[in-house]
Amino acid sequence: MDFANDEDFYAVIPAGGSGTRLWPLSRSQEPKFLLDLLGRGQSLLVDTIQRLKNFTDEEKILVVTGAAHEESVRRQAPAIPEKNILIEPSPKNSGPAVGFAAHVLNLINPDAMLGCFAADHVIQDGAAFDEVVSKAIQAATGGNLVAVGLQPDEPSSAFGYIKKGSMSSFEGVFEVEDFVEKPSFRDAQGFISSGNYLWNAGIFVGKVSSIVEAFGEFAPEIGSLMKRIAESFVSGDDFGDIWAELAPIAFDYAVAEPAARAGKFLVVPGSFDWRDLGDFVSLAGAKAQELSSDVVVIGDPNKVFTQESAGIVVTTSGRIVSVMGMKDVVVVDTPDALMITSKDHAQEVKLIVESLKDQGFDNVL
Amino acid sequence: MDFANDEDFYAVIPAGGSGTRLWPLSRSQEPKFLLDLLGRGQSLLVDTIQRLKNFTDEEKILVVTGAAHEESVRRQAPAIPEKNILIEPSPKNSGPAVGFAAHVLNLINPDAMLGCFAADHVIQDGAAFDEVVSKAIQAATGGNLVAVGLQPDEPSSAFGYIKKGSMSSFEGVFEVEDFVEKPSFRDAQGFISSGNYLWNAGIFVGKVSSIVEAFGEFAPEIGSLMKRIAESFVSGDDFGDIWAELAPIAFDYAVAEPAARAGKFLVVPGSFDWRDLGDFVSLAGAKAQELSSDVVVIGDPNKVFTQESAGIVVTTSGRIVSVMGMKDVVVVDTPDALMITSKDHAQEVKLIVESLKDQGFDNVL
Repeated sequence: MDFANDEDFYAVIPAGGSGTRLWPLSRSQEPKFLLDLLGRGQSLLVDTIQRLKNFTDEEKILVVTGAAHEESVRRQAPAIPEKNILIEPSPKNSGPAVGFAAHVLNLINPDAMLGCFAADHVIQDGAAFDEVVSKAIQAATGGNLVAVGLQPDEPSSAFGYIKKGSMSSFEGVFEVEDFVEKPSFRDAQGFISSGNYLWNAGIFVGKVSSIVEAFGEFAPEIGSLMKRIAESFVSGDDFGDIWAELAPIAFDYAVAEPAARAGKFLVVPGSFDWRDLGDFVSLAGAKAQELSSDVVVIGDPNKVFTQESAGIVVTTSGRIVSVMGMKDVVVVDTPDALMITSKDHAQEVKLIVESLKDQGFDNVL
Repeated sequence: MDFANDEDFYAVIPAGGSGTRLWPLSRSQEPKFLLDLLGRGQSLLVDTIQRLKNFTDEEKILVVTGAAHEESVRRQAPAIPEKNILIEPSPKNSGPAVGFAAHVLNLINPDAMLGCFAADHVIQDGAAFDEVVSKAIQAATGGNLVAVGLQPDEPSSAFGYIKKGSMSSFEGVFEVEDFVEKPSFRDAQGFISSGNYLWNAGIFVGKVSSIVEAFGEFAPEIGSLMKRIAESFVSGDDFGDIWAELAPIAFDYAVAEPAARAGKFLVVPGSFDWRDLGDFVSLAGAKAQELSSDVVVIGDPNKVFTQESAGIVVTTSGRIVSVMGMKDVVVVDTPDALMITSKDHAQEVKLIVESLKDQGFDNVL
């Protein structure tokens, strides 16, 4: 089955991010995408690769990641060719990560279609995913970039939003009026009641030529550096000095938002079950769908003893974990670090990480 | 300085009890009295022995303990002669423990005075302790048993109480009207406002002959078995079969309460700083006197990171422990078991222990 409809379809998976809100489960050496967060036997990165099976095979999947994670990525995804793992000399956020892959592909296959997929999201309904992405690919043939949005079911302040505009010339595909980064809870409530906002699923599709053109138009400094970086990469030359000149910037800020304002970004609303497991509360929510207990356990449930409690226990230490009389508690028990908080404070775990960093405990970060 | 005033004074330390409310810090193999609960460099048992230095030396201290703890007791208290460690073949509560020591002493030195001291209480003011115990010894010369009571400063339901009666013929020493086991909080409030109740400090003094007589009068079955056990012990014979016939019973129920009703128990009110660290809240309270933080840490404070939190963290694992946004939390982090509860539920930790026992996790109990 070729959902990509004769287009030469490549997938790019930017695999970065530190995930400090999931510390001490995620670490700088082992970020979220390398973890089997839901206890399913494989990491979110491997999930993401497998989810693309109806669109492309590993020969046409590119992973952009940091040098610190190269070995883990290769070990987890051995079918992806060595040359398809693009190593960033230093983290520059998602703008340069997407730009790197797009400009390399532009040298290899400028007529290709490119889909960009977050490495660390959880998506459960494969058929609905296939349908929405196929629709995005069709819409992208017209030269626009096309995002995937999801009907929000709660006013979350942990996700990005996409504001829908008018219907485009493609049935069921809309112009993007705006991309909105994580809003306040109050703003999120307004978004939900307006009916015009979708969750940004971290997926977009576009012709390689269109994406490179968008960089040239909306982020020309990154675009011109990326041309040189891609040429060095393809000819096997070192590009560290050029990379060092890049300013760190998110793809949304650098390209997506200005492209949307210029009327060049579309969005396909989808309805598959999607989660960005950004903190322990969302992790508990994702796991709770599979469980009926008041305490969601990620790890060996035979080692976890709870009484009069509700919340989430994540355990990777092999120890006995006992929780008594705690409501909405978050317990993360790893071999060298323990973190205890409440659901209300789950977004603030990064404060602990900062405090540890300040005091030189980098070995557990 | 001989506070015992020419009497031949012996001290008995019953060292038993499982301390399940302090799990996983205390274990069946390492109960409270063997632990350095306050991080002072020595166990509560060793504290107790040292506290007696103005009354007797190790040659005249008897420790009654279980076979499982014999080795630890000998290691922690090497100056106590081997023959002074009385090993109970099985736990039978405090009645038989006290009876064992008293009946053995009755064969060795029937004219001796005996003081019985809990192995796991924290007492801070040595001079006041010496004064009260000296007074109790003087009062005991008259043939009565004499307890030590403390002016309560809160209506705790975690301690036993002693109801004062009339003044005895000894200045500042009162008849005991009643011993009351851990009361309800409401009853404890009434005790405090009445002004007639003292905390039972787990200390009593009496002539050996008076104590043996009291067993004979109020607990004759234990008394007659104990005579045979003590004879076997002194002649080096096995007494396991006789010991097995003993019914487990607390000294208070078996002897102290009926002796008080018969007008044979006196009490000396004292005012030293005393604590029975029965659970993590009382442990935090004892430690908080030394600290000013919202989170009391027992263990290495350099490994404990807290933000917007209050409560107690006990850590013996060497791991990083981080706590964010938790009020009145109790965290006990040991190498093989973790326990998290709230101050309100600290007394219920034994439910966790029971649950672990039911499921065969004896290795962590």
